[in-house]
Amino acid sequence: MPLDHIGIAVENLERSLAVYEPALSTKGSPPEVVASQRARVSFLDVGDSHLELLEPTEPDSPIGKFLAKRGEGLHHLAFHVRSVDEALDGVRARGGRLVDERARPGARGRRVGFAHPSAFLGTLVEFVEGP
Amino acid sequence: MPLDHIGIAVENLERSLAVYEPALSTKGSPPEVVASQRARVSFLDVGDSHLELLEPTEPDSPIGKFLAKRGEGLHHLAFHVRSVDEALDGVRARGGRLVDERARPGARGRRVGFAHPSAFLGTLVEFVEGP
Repeated sequence: MPLDHIGIAVENLERSLAVYEPALSTKGSPPEVVASQRARVSFLDVGDSHLELLEPTEPDSPIGKFLAKRGEGLHHLAFHVRSVDEALDGVRARGGRLVDERARPGARGRRVGFAHPSAFLGTLVEFVEGP
Repeated sequence: MPLDHIGIAVENLERSLAVYEPALSTKGSPPEVVASQRARVSFLDVGDSHLELLEPTEPDSPIGKFLAKRGEGLHHLAFHVRSVDEALDGVRARGGRLVDERARPGARGRRVGFAHPSAFLGTLVEFVEGP
């Protein structure tokens, strides 16, 4: 199952791009607000996958709460799948808990869905459809 | 700068492979002890990059201390570079702190080096050479 991106929680998107862009010799995508996640995000190419920098738009959003508890850093892994609903069904069938029961709209106009961290030994896993 | 792998700290390598292998439809590499990191590791293919599951061989190793403090989960990002020494020099030149001043032997017979998490806003970054 190919990796789509790694999500990194940050306090400030522009300040973070100023660190990551020169270090990785790449440019971040124009910042996009993802309403369903209450986050402002930018993607950087790292080979065939991406880093997604996520800044919370509200303190009580998932990223805002993560920052308050753990500080900036690695937040989730996202895998590329043909069907998010099928991927979520697969986690459920193996006895794993889910955050999302069904696919919902995510960044870049994609359908996404999250498993619960307990399903992957403490790692928050997202599934992302096409293209 | 292409992603080489994502390191995930785990309590038990075999139990973790039993979760990740079926979920990602892939097999982990035969477990390898990395003396310099005091960890036992296995790599799983996820597209062009890999997940590296790391189990500590000693409680006071870097992974052992991470588990004691934060529990299982995402531990580091590793990028593929031509020269680890040059990549470390680049971090230093931009004012970033380093864990390793020079490249040292890592998993899979590769030369590796770590920046300090403060150099990348809380994310531990490793550089890995060839092939």
